[in-house]
Amino acid sequence: MSGQTSGSYTIILRMELEPNVAFIQIANAIHEKGGEIVAVDIVNRSKQKTIRDITVSVSNRETEAELIENVRNVPGIKIVNISDRTFLMHLGGKLEVRSKVPIKNRDDLSHVYTPGVARVCMALHEDPSKAYSLTIKRNTVAVVSDGTAVLGLGDIGPIAAMPVMEGKAMLFKEMADIDSFPICLDTKDTEEIIRIVKSIAPAFGGINLEDISSPRCFEIEERLKKELDIPVFHDDQHGTAVVMLAGLINALKIVNKQISDIKVVFSGVGAAGVACTKMLIAAGVKHIVGATRSVGIINRNATYENPMLQWYAENTNPDNVTGTLSDAMQGADVFIGLSGPGVITVDDLKKMAKDPIVFAMANPTPEILPEIAEPYVRVMATGRSDYPNQLNNVLCFPGIFRGALDCQATIINEEMKLAAAYAIASIVEDAELNEQYIIPSVFNNRVVEVVRRKVIQAAVDTGVARKVPHEFA
Amino acid sequence: MSGQTSGSYTIILRMELEPNVAFIQIANAIHEKGGEIVAVDIVNRSKQKTIRDITVSVSNRETEAELIENVRNVPGIKIVNISDRTFLMHLGGKLEVRSKVPIKNRDDLSHVYTPGVARVCMALHEDPSKAYSLTIKRNTVAVVSDGTAVLGLGDIGPIAAMPVMEGKAMLFKEMADIDSFPICLDTKDTEEIIRIVKSIAPAFGGINLEDISSPRCFEIEERLKKELDIPVFHDDQHGTAVVMLAGLINALKIVNKQISDIKVVFSGVGAAGVACTKMLIAAGVKHIVGATRSVGIINRNATYENPMLQWYAENTNPDNVTGTLSDAMQGADVFIGLSGPGVITVDDLKKMAKDPIVFAMANPTPEILPEIAEPYVRVMATGRSDYPNQLNNVLCFPGIFRGALDCQATIINEEMKLAAAYAIASIVEDAELNEQYIIPSVFNNRVVEVVRRKVIQAAVDTGVARKVPHEFA
Repeated sequence: MSGQTSGSYTIILRMELEPNVAFIQIANAIHEKGGEIVAVDIVNRSKQKTIRDITVSVSNRETEAELIENVRNVPGIKIVNISDRTFLMHLGGKLEVRSKVPIKNRDDLSHVYTPGVARVCMALHEDPSKAYSLTIKRNTVAVVSDGTAVLGLGDIGPIAAMPVMEGKAMLFKEMADIDSFPICLDTKDTEEIIRIVKSIAPAFGGINLEDISSPRCFEIEERLKKELDIPVFHDDQHGTAVVMLAGLINALKIVNKQISDIKVVFSGVGAAGVACTKMLIAAGVKHIVGATRSVGIINRNATYENPMLQWYAENTNPDNVTGTLSDAMQGADVFIGLSGPGVITVDDLKKMAKDPIVFAMANPTPEILPEIAEPYVRVMATGRSDYPNQLNNVLCFPGIFRGALDCQATIINEEMKLAAAYAIASIVEDAELNEQYIIPSVFNNRVVEVVRRKVIQAAVDTGVARKVPHEFA
Repeated sequence: MSGQTSGSYTIILRMELEPNVAFIQIANAIHEKGGEIVAVDIVNRSKQKTIRDITVSVSNRETEAELIENVRNVPGIKIVNISDRTFLMHLGGKLEVRSKVPIKNRDDLSHVYTPGVARVCMALHEDPSKAYSLTIKRNTVAVVSDGTAVLGLGDIGPIAAMPVMEGKAMLFKEMADIDSFPICLDTKDTEEIIRIVKSIAPAFGGINLEDISSPRCFEIEERLKKELDIPVFHDDQHGTAVVMLAGLINALKIVNKQISDIKVVFSGVGAAGVACTKMLIAAGVKHIVGATRSVGIINRNATYENPMLQWYAENTNPDNVTGTLSDAMQGADVFIGLSGPGVITVDDLKKMAKDPIVFAMANPTPEILPEIAEPYVRVMATGRSDYPNQLNNVLCFPGIFRGALDCQATIINEEMKLAAAYAIASIVEDAELNEQYIIPSVFNNRVVEVVRRKVIQAAVDTGVARKVPHEFA
């Protein structure tokens, strides 16, 4: 999944103040250590003392400690509690499971549970396809992770992965009214993960794989796609690819280049890099070169143990060029980074063709910082929310699953992903489009509906929709 | 799980009426075929015609068909739609998963998702026990079934089992504010089920096993109890046993007998029968005899292939009596049936000791019908809601899990189950207690809290509580 792993956060200081303490003293103590006051509340006031909650944005743990010490040193102040808004918002978890139907009396109970439920069970036993109307399957997605590649944190295990999976489930609900539930697995065994997901699948209308490390994520996704009749979507791969393509479609409009003509350089060929490459090929890009820090440009003179590199060698680099990433940048129209900080330099940007497009998507620190790259590029995008053009998976997964569920798709295929990318791109109208605005905000409330419609149309057109909503018939 | 599998249900007839049709004609047509009008609504009225919805309670499919035909034959009536309230209440499933925290803007997103969530993940990575405060674990139970023993319907598979598991999850929420999610497994393999439940366990504070056929249910539950550090509770066994014991405690008060003195006869030694037997032994019953239709009284002269029968032979029947179920009834104080309809007769009841107690819990048709047994028994209970003294698992599982979650219990042990049974019994006060009222209603809103308190106390006393709520410290 994409997103930053560092950045500022807020703490709430609850303090008891003697009557003689002036607010400016507190404000100064906070300001001196780089804190930003976000909110001030009076909890309780008496003649003897006042209790205030002061919400402060701080940038890291060290600053936080110094800031607290500085506030403590103001005479007449006693800090009684320090709480962290992020942690407060996680207390007790972020999800709840609710009944859609109340059970107020015996009559209600007799319909939703015994004895009435038995007739519904038997109707499903006779025709399991009725699961889409008589169970939660119609609107429910499993968010499955083994916790091996969580954010930029790596293999932190299933329990530590839960807050991310709960967050993902929240976004499914808030953005697209999809019910989803986090399934964090205490196993890393590929075959076991496949068996488990297959076994739990009956209740679900789709499977969102999340934060599973490569190369296991490929095998797991491919096998599940083959062996299940519901959509299986590894968001880290395909969500990233769809959003990247959406951004590229609009960036190319600005520089007035055709997708079939461009030369694209990739840095980083992990799960997301390979998925992005496949998406570009599907979208019509003919000239792609990939490179990594350790092996340089991936080419057909070499053989690679890593099956992803081998796939890359066989499917990209039509001119079979060799050399370093820096060599590859010569004449490139587009750079796409899914690797790590500092991989490219201003010199590399200078080698690119006219009107360079740079998507530096490494998290939290991009391949090159926008403030450094700006003078040398035409369009720049990152995965971060604090620069323009944030390429964020949240733009894709709610709408693509909303569409897939609404037409009871058996799969999310290439056509549906391409449709989603063009749909996201279409939200930015030509009149609005500019170098700083190639991709809509994650809070643009048109995104989900537009993606949904285009995804359903693509599913219907490619024959993978089990149900054709009447607006598409 | 206990509950009826037959009984009346309601349908909704939408009909177009010409102006000359009198309501009494419709009422008669429904009444003639045994239907009961529950509600009448006017949907639309014009000069030419009226559209009405008439909700009718019918007793079975044949009656329904005849009734509809009879209404159709009334001149001037056109039935435009027939819907079934039970099915209507299942449309789209009965559960939803919701965010507890809104995501309205980028600031919210940065706390519940990236980048803020990373700090919460790392806190969990450093100390996984924080899952109880920072994830949904604290309040979440998995309802796990393989669909092999659903209600009285047998092995109907995981999809057909979903409405029952969704219903169970609704009851967890509505009765005890517990979030639970149905996990219906598309496998019947004991080892695989154990592995899956262990793998998905990190997110959950407890596992409720449901409708898994015997003898696999024993192995699955025993192994999971040993190998997991959260409560694992097979409700069909232990929920039934706890509620049965609660009823028996109160029934014995009426007949003024001591639990250590009574002679109990069991009919049916399946999963629930064995669990009830173990519960009675734990509660102090010394004299238990079990019998089945095929082998008669289970005794130590025989050896049994079925491990449940063998366990029964070794652990009950202190006088090693032999013969038929009917022979066993001679002098019995209590009969407990978890078998099938018509297993005992009035003659059997006549053989019992003074003030017979009969719990005929077979579903949907008890071992002997209350209207037949009534003249010959002092206290009678069944699993049905249409007779007095309904022994229903809904009295147990919400409160026992509420208690187990609130003290972060590692297990639900015998002491906690006994405490739950005494707690349920205690709801019926001595002044209220009578032959028709030995067990509270499932809608008695004191049950969950009283069970919770007694279960926590038992968990604390037996050292299985990881957290002692301050009211118990």
